[in-house]
Amino acid sequence: MTDAPTRADATIRAADFKTAFRGHPAGIALITATSDSGPVGLTASSVASVALDPPALSFSVTRATGTAGALLAADTFVVHLLADRHAELARVFAHSGAPRFTPEQGWSQLPTGEPLLGDARAALRCRALHVVPVGSSSLVIAEVLDVHLGPTAPALVYHDGRYHRLDEASPEL
Amino acid sequence: MTDAPTRADATIRAADFKTAFRGHPAGIALITATSDSGPVGLTASSVASVALDPPALSFSVTRATGTAGALLAADTFVVHLLADRHAELARVFAHSGAPRFTPEQGWSQLPTGEPLLGDARAALRCRALHVVPVGSSSLVIAEVLDVHLGPTAPALVYHDGRYHRLDEASPEL
Repeated sequence: MTDAPTRADATIRAADFKTAFRGHPAGIALITATSDSGPVGLTASSVASVALDPPALSFSVTRATGTAGALLAADTFVVHLLADRHAELARVFAHSGAPRFTPEQGWSQLPTGEPLLGDARAALRCRALHVVPVGSSSLVIAEVLDVHLGPTAPALVYHDGRYHRLDEASPEL
Repeated sequence: MTDAPTRADATIRAADFKTAFRGHPAGIALITATSDSGPVGLTASSVASVALDPPALSFSVTRATGTAGALLAADTFVVHLLADRHAELARVFAHSGAPRFTPEQGWSQLPTGEPLLGDARAALRCRALHVVPVGSSSLVIAEVLDVHLGPTAPALVYHDGRYHRLDEASPEL
């Protein structure tokens, strides 16, 4: 007799875990960097503030994708906190195959080389302090080197597989 | 001559960093544990899913508070993902001095001893895998041992210092 979880237990737990987080709202970020093969970027719903001194944030990526590998290999990267107008851009960078870094998307380049989305609510240039492997993901803890505040705008929030606008019209509790 | 940031640079950067994240929406969680002096709990806006295998999540706490210290000392803790009905509870556990773990708040106890809020959207019993110090905060990466799914309900989202309801009526993009 043992208390070790069976495979069935683990499968149920993983399914319930997905259900739980599917309903947990999240702000949306687009993380970009340069690589040997050009600019790379991915959409992340896991960006959170960690500390103020030094300013630091965290996010996680699935290591399976080439984009995540290129981001983890970059010396610095830019975490863009997105506004409601960026829902389509968030979809493009959440899936492979869609056209990225097109002129219409409004990209420029920081003096330090990273791709910049100038109309993001905020763009935070970062350098990783720690990268912690967890299963097939990596959790990145990064120091914020520079902050570029963009135009004020309603925020973009992801919940239950959909993108929503969050602003003063949203029901307050 | 040096490129090292001055104190003024660092102060501006920290202020802009706060402004950036104040506008970044976040789901709200209430994290509880038992301690030598009874049940402890705190409100967290930094809970994020990290990996599926094993199911793992992350959050950060400011080490300055006694509650955070008690949580970090606990062998296991429960991360409750909150619903819209929990806005007042989130406020109570975000500030010291307000009455916590009262009968009216609907607490029970898991067979393993941790305080449980049965009507949370989900309650995830966890054990820390890594605790990473970052400035005066600690980032916790935790394995999810058990998942209790609660009643379906609109989610609670924190944005710009306010709590909002997020449901099907929220503008979709």
